[in-house]
Amino acid sequence: MLEYVAEFVGTMILIIFGAGVVAAVSLKGSKAEGAGWIAISIGWGFAVALGVYVSGTISDAHLNPAVTLGFAAIGEFPWNQVPGYIIGQILGAIAGAVVVFFHYYPHWKVTPDPATKLGVFATAPAIRHTPSNFIAEFIGTAVLVFGLLAIGANTFSEGLNPLVVGLLIIAIGLSLGGPTGYAINPARDLGPRIAHAILPIDKKGPSDWAYAWVPILGPIAGGIVGAILYTLMF
Amino acid sequence: MLEYVAEFVGTMILIIFGAGVVAAVSLKGSKAEGAGWIAISIGWGFAVALGVYVSGTISDAHLNPAVTLGFAAIGEFPWNQVPGYIIGQILGAIAGAVVVFFHYYPHWKVTPDPATKLGVFATAPAIRHTPSNFIAEFIGTAVLVFGLLAIGANTFSEGLNPLVVGLLIIAIGLSLGGPTGYAINPARDLGPRIAHAILPIDKKGPSDWAYAWVPILGPIAGGIVGAILYTLMF
Amino acid sequence: MLEYVAEFVGTMILIIFGAGVVAAVSLKGSKAEGAGWIAISIGWGFAVALGVYVSGTISDAHLNPAVTLGFAAIGEFPWNQVPGYIIGQILGAIAGAVVVFFHYYPHWKVTPDPATKLGVFATAPAIRHTPSNFIAEFIGTAVLVFGLLAIGANTFSEGLNPLVVGLLIIAIGLSLGGPTGYAINPARDLGPRIAHAILPIDKKGPSDWAYAWVPILGPIAGGIVGAILYTLMF
Amino acid sequence: MLEYVAEFVGTMILIIFGAGVVAAVSLKGSKAEGAGWIAISIGWGFAVALGVYVSGTISDAHLNPAVTLGFAAIGEFPWNQVPGYIIGQILGAIAGAVVVFFHYYPHWKVTPDPATKLGVFATAPAIRHTPSNFIAEFIGTAVLVFGLLAIGANTFSEGLNPLVVGLLIIAIGLSLGGPTGYAINPARDLGPRIAHAILPIDKKGPSDWAYAWVPILGPIAGGIVGAILYTLMF
Repeated sequence: MLEYVAEFVGTMILIIFGAGVVAAVSLKGSKAEGAGWIAISIGWGFAVALGVYVSGTISDAHLNPAVTLGFAAIGEFPWNQVPGYIIGQILGAIAGAVVVFFHYYPHWKVTPDPATKLGVFATAPAIRHTPSNFIAEFIGTAVLVFGLLAIGANTFSEGLNPLVVGLLIIAIGLSLGGPTGYAINPARDLGPRIAHAILPIDKKGPSDWAYAWVPILGPIAGGIVGAILYTLMF
Repeated sequence: MLEYVAEFVGTMILIIFGAGVVAAVSLKGSKAEGAGWIAISIGWGFAVALGVYVSGTISDAHLNPAVTLGFAAIGEFPWNQVPGYIIGQILGAIAGAVVVFFHYYPHWKVTPDPATKLGVFATAPAIRHTPSNFIAEFIGTAVLVFGLLAIGANTFSEGLNPLVVGLLIIAIGLSLGGPTGYAINPARDLGPRIAHAILPIDKKGPSDWAYAWVPILGPIAGGIVGAILYTLMF
Repeated sequence: MLEYVAEFVGTMILIIFGAGVVAAVSLKGSKAEGAGWIAISIGWGFAVALGVYVSGTISDAHLNPAVTLGFAAIGEFPWNQVPGYIIGQILGAIAGAVVVFFHYYPHWKVTPDPATKLGVFATAPAIRHTPSNFIAEFIGTAVLVFGLLAIGANTFSEGLNPLVVGLLIIAIGLSLGGPTGYAINPARDLGPRIAHAILPIDKKGPSDWAYAWVPILGPIAGGIVGAILYTLMF
Repeated sequence: MLEYVAEFVGTMILIIFGAGVVAAVSLKGSKAEGAGWIAISIGWGFAVALGVYVSGTISDAHLNPAVTLGFAAIGEFPWNQVPGYIIGQILGAIAGAVVVFFHYYPHWKVTPDPATKLGVFATAPAIRHTPSNFIAEFIGTAVLVFGLLAIGANTFSEGLNPLVVGLLIIAIGLSLGGPTGYAINPARDLGPRIAHAILPIDKKGPSDWAYAWVPILGPIAGGIVGAILYTLMF
């Protein structure tokens, strides 16, 4: 049970920093407005690293259903804990998005564009083309899970692992984030999208549920294939 | 006593680099002028890391009254050392601001905007709305102290800890600094604000004392709540 | 044999992230469009670090024929494994470029400039001047191999080495990448150039084979000389 | 004797990356042109880290006469080795500048501004005001040597130390580089200035020898005072 709480708290931290950096860079009047893609990539990388630091002494610090399912698919994680992990991750992501909503409270009203506001919570494709968007989420998450397994195969001084995982996330953001904004994590996209639908955000637009399945199923498929590819190759 | 000197020196180093990077990025004619929010976030992160390196072999390297009070609130720091720590921190912050004043001496005269000059020393909200500004400082500091306790629960190779703390500060700056410029430290804001009021800065404006309580009480409340939340959860 | 597979996979990862970051920054509509040279340098640095993490538990993680030949030239690597390593590296680079092609699929059509599209795959000189371009690739790779040997002479906590190698690549990109875009690796340039020639990229231009020998022979010569200089000096 | 060679090689590497990143960011046509102050700060930080990796297994890796003199002043370095170290450092800096000259060979002709070309080699103040410029170099170097001693007082996993030193340099660049471009190292400024005077740079201007003593004496004074302050305080 404590493990599920750890996944909840770790994913909440992940989204506080992750959705937070998108808010910081894109909401009107924010002191970080216009800081650009490097800020966003570094912000999400440190978000994951800090989420792992917070949860990793108690749970496996997946913070991501695609990682949980990918690891389960190759026998690296017990299936009976999968539901608890995923529920904790999604609820944590919702909670993190609520914190970001309050943190940036005066900035929602002064930001006119509804898509910008949705973008703080959920991903959207650069060019809407469902098969390509699915493939991009698939590839990004396959690389993520493949990379996590490879990093885990190295011997670290304790405490370094979350940093290297954070660098992997920064790299995925910089190199593979261009087409879809790299959800690569169903909880990271679904949780805040639910929060966007519920929260009283000033002049918000629709939550774009038509796209919501892509950053859920693409990462799950990619995570499982990435894990299997790793076990086949090494 | 030596511990208080270490807090003084560490916080002085923190402000030399922290106020320094704001001066570098915002004062007219500086070679770093316009380097933007990423420079400011990295600069403050390294400022904290270096302050911890300097003081951490002698004191607990809080460099921040909100951290000192938060740790004391959960029994991780003795109450009788709290006053000495906080006095050392505030005096160190004043001293650091004085160093930055002299380091950027020719640039005060060529920078016309008084708010820019005050911004080197003290924080100001992006959108002035006291309850929201208080909440943003509260959340930012709660995340800081929660994160510090989580990082401390991991096992590090010695010498890595200050770097990870620095990354936490960079992350808070990038993700949560947008609404108020993230004081998240009463000494960091009050000390340089006092220096601004005293120093003979060319054509300076008022020191905005009306706002000064927000980056003092917001961080203190957030630090205590963050520390208590951590002990409740883990 | 498994070592050659590791070189293949590691170099594929290297190019997924490396060609990926150039695509992210330069293709039209990409969310990272215009993120600039810092993004490219960091992206390539992490690309190498992650390639080393993936392959380094099995092979020597050269991921670069100039490194393989440089190390062989000073007796640090067996000559009979050189062909297998280089073939694995070039095939891996081709495979990585194919992944990037699919990952950014909708962006090729909306990017009008053929040189921009080629630039995702292969390097081109800032100012075309063959002797100077050759010297720049020579110097960059000499510094790379010299630096790799120097880093290897230090004692690291296990797991840190790939990060330091990544920082060396970032530094070479930032400081020495200006004249030619720093191939400093024959496989990194030749493999994706072959992929560019073969792949059905929308409205692509020629693959600039006239320049292709410079980022092959320049790095090989530089790698061998850098390795010899290191052994002479230390 | 080998120690002096190591100081030569380490300082050469330092200047290849350090002068290199200024060339990359400021010379016309360079692929990194306009990458800005963050690129320059990171570039110099990694330059020092890599110089320390290269030389640190043989010499004390000062790469800086102000560090050598500061450490000697407090008895942390033998005076009889000071001349050899400083000569090695200055000659290495000249050699590194020559490498950068050839690396960016076609870019000198297309860069019209002589001050930009000199700026690749030597520092210049943002606002020319000798006492302030001297103080800025004094403070920057005092912080450098104070920080080096503080970092050295921590226990590191082997191999981490050069990285932390590199972060200190990045921090000094970001926060304290604004007024004078932070020579903080007499060899770093004098060596390349000599190279600038000698090398056949296309349409170069004067080497600004009137300013040259400031980035020599300011750092030496600051280095000695920083070292003494550290021993007094700790």
